[in-house]
Amino acid sequence: MALPAPLTGVVPPVCTPLTPDREVDVPSLLRLVDHLVEGGVHGVFVLGTASEAAFLTDRQRRQVVEAVAAHLDGRLPLLAGAIDMSTARVLDQVASVAAAGADGVVVTAPFYVLSRPAEIARHFRRVAERSPVPVLAYDIPPCVHTGLPVDLVLHLAEEGALAGLKDSSADLAHLREILAGVRAGAGPAGFSVLTGSERLVDAALALGADGAVPGLANVDPHGYVRLYRQARAGDWDGARAEQERLCELAGMTGSAGTGPSAWGAYKAALHLRGVIDCPATAEPQLPPAPEEVERVRTLLAAAGLV
Amino acid sequence: MALPAPLTGVVPPVCTPLTPDREVDVPSLLRLVDHLVEGGVHGVFVLGTASEAAFLTDRQRRQVVEAVAAHLDGRLPLLAGAIDMSTARVLDQVASVAAAGADGVVVTAPFYVLSRPAEIARHFRRVAERSPVPVLAYDIPPCVHTGLPVDLVLHLAEEGALAGLKDSSADLAHLREILAGVRAGAGPAGFSVLTGSERLVDAALALGADGAVPGLANVDPHGYVRLYRQARAGDWDGARAEQERLCELAGMTGSAGTGPSAWGAYKAALHLRGVIDCPATAEPQLPPAPEEVERVRTLLAAAGLV
Amino acid sequence: MALPAPLTGVVPPVCTPLTPDREVDVPSLLRLVDHLVEGGVHGVFVLGTASEAAFLTDRQRRQVVEAVAAHLDGRLPLLAGAIDMSTARVLDQVASVAAAGADGVVVTAPFYVLSRPAEIARHFRRVAERSPVPVLAYDIPPCVHTGLPVDLVLHLAEEGALAGLKDSSADLAHLREILAGVRAGAGPAGFSVLTGSERLVDAALALGADGAVPGLANVDPHGYVRLYRQARAGDWDGARAEQERLCELAGMTGSAGTGPSAWGAYKAALHLRGVIDCPATAEPQLPPAPEEVERVRTLLAAAGLV
Amino acid sequence: MALPAPLTGVVPPVCTPLTPDREVDVPSLLRLVDHLVEGGVHGVFVLGTASEAAFLTDRQRRQVVEAVAAHLDGRLPLLAGAIDMSTARVLDQVASVAAAGADGVVVTAPFYVLSRPAEIARHFRRVAERSPVPVLAYDIPPCVHTGLPVDLVLHLAEEGALAGLKDSSADLAHLREILAGVRAGAGPAGFSVLTGSERLVDAALALGADGAVPGLANVDPHGYVRLYRQARAGDWDGARAEQERLCELAGMTGSAGTGPSAWGAYKAALHLRGVIDCPATAEPQLPPAPEEVERVRTLLAAAGLV
Repeated sequence: MALPAPLTGVVPPVCTPLTPDREVDVPSLLRLVDHLVEGGVHGVFVLGTASEAAFLTDRQRRQVVEAVAAHLDGRLPLLAGAIDMSTARVLDQVASVAAAGADGVVVTAPFYVLSRPAEIARHFRRVAERSPVPVLAYDIPPCVHTGLPVDLVLHLAEEGALAGLKDSSADLAHLREILAGVRAGAGPAGFSVLTGSERLVDAALALGADGAVPGLANVDPHGYVRLYRQARAGDWDGARAEQERLCELAGMTGSAGTGPSAWGAYKAALHLRGVIDCPATAEPQLPPAPEEVERVRTLLAAAGLV
Repeated sequence: MALPAPLTGVVPPVCTPLTPDREVDVPSLLRLVDHLVEGGVHGVFVLGTASEAAFLTDRQRRQVVEAVAAHLDGRLPLLAGAIDMSTARVLDQVASVAAAGADGVVVTAPFYVLSRPAEIARHFRRVAERSPVPVLAYDIPPCVHTGLPVDLVLHLAEEGALAGLKDSSADLAHLREILAGVRAGAGPAGFSVLTGSERLVDAALALGADGAVPGLANVDPHGYVRLYRQARAGDWDGARAEQERLCELAGMTGSAGTGPSAWGAYKAALHLRGVIDCPATAEPQLPPAPEEVERVRTLLAAAGLV
Repeated sequence: MALPAPLTGVVPPVCTPLTPDREVDVPSLLRLVDHLVEGGVHGVFVLGTASEAAFLTDRQRRQVVEAVAAHLDGRLPLLAGAIDMSTARVLDQVASVAAAGADGVVVTAPFYVLSRPAEIARHFRRVAERSPVPVLAYDIPPCVHTGLPVDLVLHLAEEGALAGLKDSSADLAHLREILAGVRAGAGPAGFSVLTGSERLVDAALALGADGAVPGLANVDPHGYVRLYRQARAGDWDGARAEQERLCELAGMTGSAGTGPSAWGAYKAALHLRGVIDCPATAEPQLPPAPEEVERVRTLLAAAGLV
Repeated sequence: MALPAPLTGVVPPVCTPLTPDREVDVPSLLRLVDHLVEGGVHGVFVLGTASEAAFLTDRQRRQVVEAVAAHLDGRLPLLAGAIDMSTARVLDQVASVAAAGADGVVVTAPFYVLSRPAEIARHFRRVAERSPVPVLAYDIPPCVHTGLPVDLVLHLAEEGALAGLKDSSADLAHLREILAGVRAGAGPAGFSVLTGSERLVDAALALGADGAVPGLANVDPHGYVRLYRQARAGDWDGARAEQERLCELAGMTGSAGTGPSAWGAYKAALHLRGVIDCPATAEPQLPPAPEEVERVRTLLAAAGLV
């Protein structure tokens, strides 16, 4: 399906359930997708950071996209990460996930060898020239160790190289500057701005973001969908209350709310809720400590989710 | 061939010559290998950072190892980088380069998602368990944003998970601590410690390092081989004079001596010396500015190399 | 006067006008304070980062607090920064600014030598034990290179060591966790949470912050006071529109909105508005480039402020 | 006395012994200075990082310089740190330590607010213009979060603004570039280059450094003086053996060898050796754990120093 322009709503970064021997557990993955669809989400994003894309082999990545694309069968927009170190490698990933059924790809700045801003721009231009599907930039400084400056994003939007931005910079002032630029006419009419900050979805929507990519929506998609609807209806008090409830649940990931502890907690929660068969994360990540799993259970119980 | 234990001497990280359309230029690559062999080097290291491994596709990476392995035909030890983000992905790279003929693999800590020390150790253990060839750890904090603590390296050496270390941390005190631990009995008898600091090879050898992996040896292998021989003969004054001459030549990479400006300069120099056909670096890197190329030419001329 | 608990509203970090030979320009400073009072602000904060406290000598720091305290004469709460590297040095600063008339002090984590969390806690406890006035923690990672973890702030609040927090971490999710903890009962009833993010005051107030310390309020105090009143009245659309207008004006500081370019721009604007006599910043800072001053003028004109 | 040009030899950064209530313990300080003089050191450096200058009040800093200057009475060159955030504040420190008897001052780049290279150069120029004694630049990126580029140091040397460099960057390649520039004629004939790397003194001297400022020389000045003499006599094997012995002793500071654990260990060792009365470090630093003190004792015993 053509990617909506803009893409709006709640678009969870789908966890990748694994078997005990660290292969993709496709039946659990499809149950998780069903759980999200049933929760009312507006799209799904596979092979993102919270999907452990950095840990999956190319074969496993393809398997994920193919399985989810076939299962969704066009019912919802399907974004896929194309996470790799540089232009040619990203283009191989783009070709693979697009062939497997992704409606759009999400691409970071180069990493391992850091690039200057002019090289980051060139990277996105080269990727966009050859991608068969729309490209969203993925701003995630904790992983790639460089950020996407406001001007760079807006220039690439104006040129048509980018169809949107997934902002995981945790910096709402930066998001606000992007949104102001987009409103002022940079970029195509349907440029999508999505926040990756699961604890600030109400705030990001109030600033004008089109949607959110909250990792915690794996665990409680209904909550994020309610929050999104309240915000769209102008019920900001309701949205804030819902977000604050979700923030308590987000306590399962530790205060930081990023990194391996985040998806380790989501998987523990999905396992406790019966959605997936095994909470294992990929090598070389250590499993959560027993007290971390207990904290997940306590928070799920407090939220009425187990 | 079996990797020597320890691997000693000058083992250049081989640049990857590209055609103007950014494919591997195999004839230029083999001329470069001949240039290194003729210069007297003791091994070659393909798919390292200075080889632009981060920019090459999996197909291009295989092409490099296959071409160099066939061409060397066992005349010299062949190391290959297996640069990827995490355990399962690295293992795919290891399988590929080992099948293509590498005698040993060089593996970094996980990157993109950062790991805790216990997870880094687990990463190297899992890789070593399944690698058909010896594994050297590649300590390169500017690229992977985490370092390899002394204790971690020594424990992995003792366990037999690691056959050696390529230290690109730029921190000789760290290197010295590793060397002291190895001398004190950690690790197998033949544990290899190689420095990646092209401006400090004399100093690293004086501390007890087994060898060096200097990027600049692409340009002047004879110089580094002379330096190594002088050091091994205990002629420290001669080694220092040779190193200082090489440091002047290293001015081609800018003061920092790392990053894209380094291999851009090496390739410019190899092109000016007639070893390779085209100085292009991979996308999305910008080419060196004309004044940077001019600086390379001036330094080569001063060194009598053009 | 006793510091209100909580301190609420708009509390600008007051720029420190300098003469051309880099002495404190007291008449300009008092005109700036009058400009803020007339704009309706709820308190003033001298010797903060945007006040160039890091650049002022101890004599100049005292001069600032004495002049402003005498001029305000209790009309508004007066916060003063006590910016120094470690406990004993901070206590000297605290004694000086309290004696000069500050109603509360704002204290960062130790810097230059970084501290572990238990040492940061000890630092705040020791400072609080000996401070004659309430202590607010100043979370400003870009300057001190360490952040204040949520748990640490909440424990210190519970113990009564801290009377509040000035959050310049630019991370609203962190602010939100602090606010949730305070609401849940950590800390005295009147614990103050103030945001330092001049582009996100509406969002921070929506999350429950008590007030804001926006550098740009030096230039347009009326705007921030209107924004605060709208937010307090529940007029979130009005607050957002006012904030977005202020964000355009904030374009004077460059996209980053922090660092020397920020107060260089504020001072240029205050000079253009006729509030201060000289826009000089302290040594060794370079003056803004002419095109930066021109940008300030253009934005002021667009805002109807010149 | 006039500072030698260049300053050569072993110039320890003198620990600042404290009483249990964290005042300067002058008798212990003078015993420590006697211990260093008796060990044959070539100068002393007070108020450096390892002296806990960042933790001492201005009064305490003056007390240290006055006491040591009076005690030395010109027998050895006396360097003093003038550690503060920016130009005017550093100049106050410079005036204070010069009046108290320092023969030279050691000055870092500005910190807290980071500066651009042109501003760092301006900072050193302004300080040098007004300093009554020679100024050495102090390159210590872990504390000030910015480094001193090679070109900047060499330009300031050529201009005569700097009399020398204390390099605590831990990067010997950087040191080597500085030394090459100095040899090539940048700077006055007597420009001093001193390394701060206590584990690499032999290597730094082999590269051409004039001397060293090793924190561990507080504990074993005799060892560093032997090492220096061996290196100057061209006995590089002897120097290396002595350095390796000192590296084992340096194990008392943990693997990193920097930060609070370093001077905490030095003080514990000086206390165990009977040189100082109390091993306390300044607030808010936590004391070493009992097992850390035990490690110090074991290493001292192994070295025959207790």
